[in-house]
Amino acid sequence: MAAENLLKSWNDTPTRQEIVDFVQSVSTEASAGFAAPAERVAVFDNDGTLWSEKPIPIQLDFTLFRMAELAGRDRSLRHRQPYKAAVERDYRWLGDAVVKHYHGDDARLRLLKAAVESAFEGMSVEEFGAEVLGWLGTASHPVLRRSYSSCGFVPMVELLRYLEANGFTTYIASGGDRDFMRPFAGTLYGIPPERVIGSALGLDFDARGADTQLMYKSEIEFFDDGPQKPVRIWSRVGRRPLVAVGNSNGDVPMLRFTRMGERGALRLLVLHDDGEREFAYTAGAEDALTRAKTDGWTVISVKDDWGTVFADR
Amino acid sequence: MAAENLLKSWNDTPTRQEIVDFVQSVSTEASAGFAAPAERVAVFDNDGTLWSEKPIPIQLDFTLFRMAELAGRDRSLRHRQPYKAAVERDYRWLGDAVVKHYHGDDARLRLLKAAVESAFEGMSVEEFGAEVLGWLGTASHPVLRRSYSSCGFVPMVELLRYLEANGFTTYIASGGDRDFMRPFAGTLYGIPPERVIGSALGLDFDARGADTQLMYKSEIEFFDDGPQKPVRIWSRVGRRPLVAVGNSNGDVPMLRFTRMGERGALRLLVLHDDGEREFAYTAGAEDALTRAKTDGWTVISVKDDWGTVFADR
Repeated sequence: MAAENLLKSWNDTPTRQEIVDFVQSVSTEASAGFAAPAERVAVFDNDGTLWSEKPIPIQLDFTLFRMAELAGRDRSLRHRQPYKAAVERDYRWLGDAVVKHYHGDDARLRLLKAAVESAFEGMSVEEFGAEVLGWLGTASHPVLRRSYSSCGFVPMVELLRYLEANGFTTYIASGGDRDFMRPFAGTLYGIPPERVIGSALGLDFDARGADTQLMYKSEIEFFDDGPQKPVRIWSRVGRRPLVAVGNSNGDVPMLRFTRMGERGALRLLVLHDDGEREFAYTAGAEDALTRAKTDGWTVISVKDDWGTVFADR
Repeated sequence: MAAENLLKSWNDTPTRQEIVDFVQSVSTEASAGFAAPAERVAVFDNDGTLWSEKPIPIQLDFTLFRMAELAGRDRSLRHRQPYKAAVERDYRWLGDAVVKHYHGDDARLRLLKAAVESAFEGMSVEEFGAEVLGWLGTASHPVLRRSYSSCGFVPMVELLRYLEANGFTTYIASGGDRDFMRPFAGTLYGIPPERVIGSALGLDFDARGADTQLMYKSEIEFFDDGPQKPVRIWSRVGRRPLVAVGNSNGDVPMLRFTRMGERGALRLLVLHDDGEREFAYTAGAEDALTRAKTDGWTVISVKDDWGTVFADR
């Protein structure tokens, strides 16, 4: 099944054609680029690739209410970052932390990470999942004025289904927290929990009760960004991807990892150039855009390649 | 599809009946124990559960030739453990290391782990996979006198297929090295690499060449045994298992993790009681056997429940 009709929110541009040509070549037995179904692995970054990441990654907003709550209990936290930003809902401080990280300055991200790490200490994985779903059911995007659960990019969800219809196994491979994404990845993207790869907090097995529990520790196990992305993909999948989709410098190692010897690969980079329908920025994506040019990656222009960005509310 | 005929190497015993009853209850929509297909997750230990682990875990034999090779290059290693045992093929020293570990004495296992950790430093994941396959194609079991690739338990492979025929997704969840098992898990057990959970060496992303590589570091990332097993299962699967199969004390946390509230679960423990066809031992399984009694786990007797143990050579 070619199933190009699944890509109906994509404009008829060279970008769309490159995607269709690659997928047809990979899934046509007579083609030189043919790959067995087991080899057809596609990995998608989440923030900025499957859904909007501006003004701050959506996950940060989830931790904000938690941090504000903690600052409510312990007043001394109110004058310390990032709790101060959480209480004041200072999106600029928080958003800049991520941009600075992509520019090599991790000072703010370290403060954030420490707060994120300790925010859920002693909570079980199942309790955490319920918290995420409860919050996502009520929270909305501060700029786009739509529920967070409708901030997914419709053309990307179509691309997931198009690849699957052509024998691909799809994965999310994100710098975001694995267990934060899992509860909604099924509803938003059609991706089950075992195919969600992301950052992780450490876990302790609590065997004291008859019902054993997995509880979050106050430390991160790994931050799944940059050179960690290929490591986490290998750990989870045990194969190199044939298709990788990202949007920032942190995705460069993942996109480069798709390539193996003479074998073809599809490397897609989302360019956020549509300030009207979404956001227009290249901060944090400079290296990725340069490499897209030198290495011949396919750049997806939100403005030109996507007929629709978001689903109707 | 009930598909009990897939269990043809199992004798018609109460054990087999308990398995069939549970699987039918879980996969019958009208049943009180019904679970949606997505919830049907089954995890299998490998050493001593899917294949023989005596006199030493098969993976250790793979590292022996590598350690002996390293000792050949550096003569000072020949008088130090575990290189001495590797050169002399001293299975007793090595086998005792594992038994001592299950009894809480990790001194030998630490020596072994350090040697295992450094044995493949600087090798890429793809090179390592090719090494494993090459070795497995020639190596044979020192006691059973059959190729290692025919040391899998036929009734367990049938159980994997039976569960899959009833909507289960099957995983290996082993203390053995994830990347050691992956190359042969497809041929021996019908399990693809993304469903192999195990211990892991640390990995470095090497982006210096045009072809990027993942290289093993000289340190273990995690040892997937005991309380780590539920942690690694959650990390990979994102669900609690409904079926867990093990054979030793290191499997107790995994077996206990299957249980959640009032929901039913099938917990199977392999008892190695057939010195004629395989091995007879309970060392390292004492706690598990005790808990099987108190918690009502199903014990599989190799002697009584299995009509066939190994495939014809």
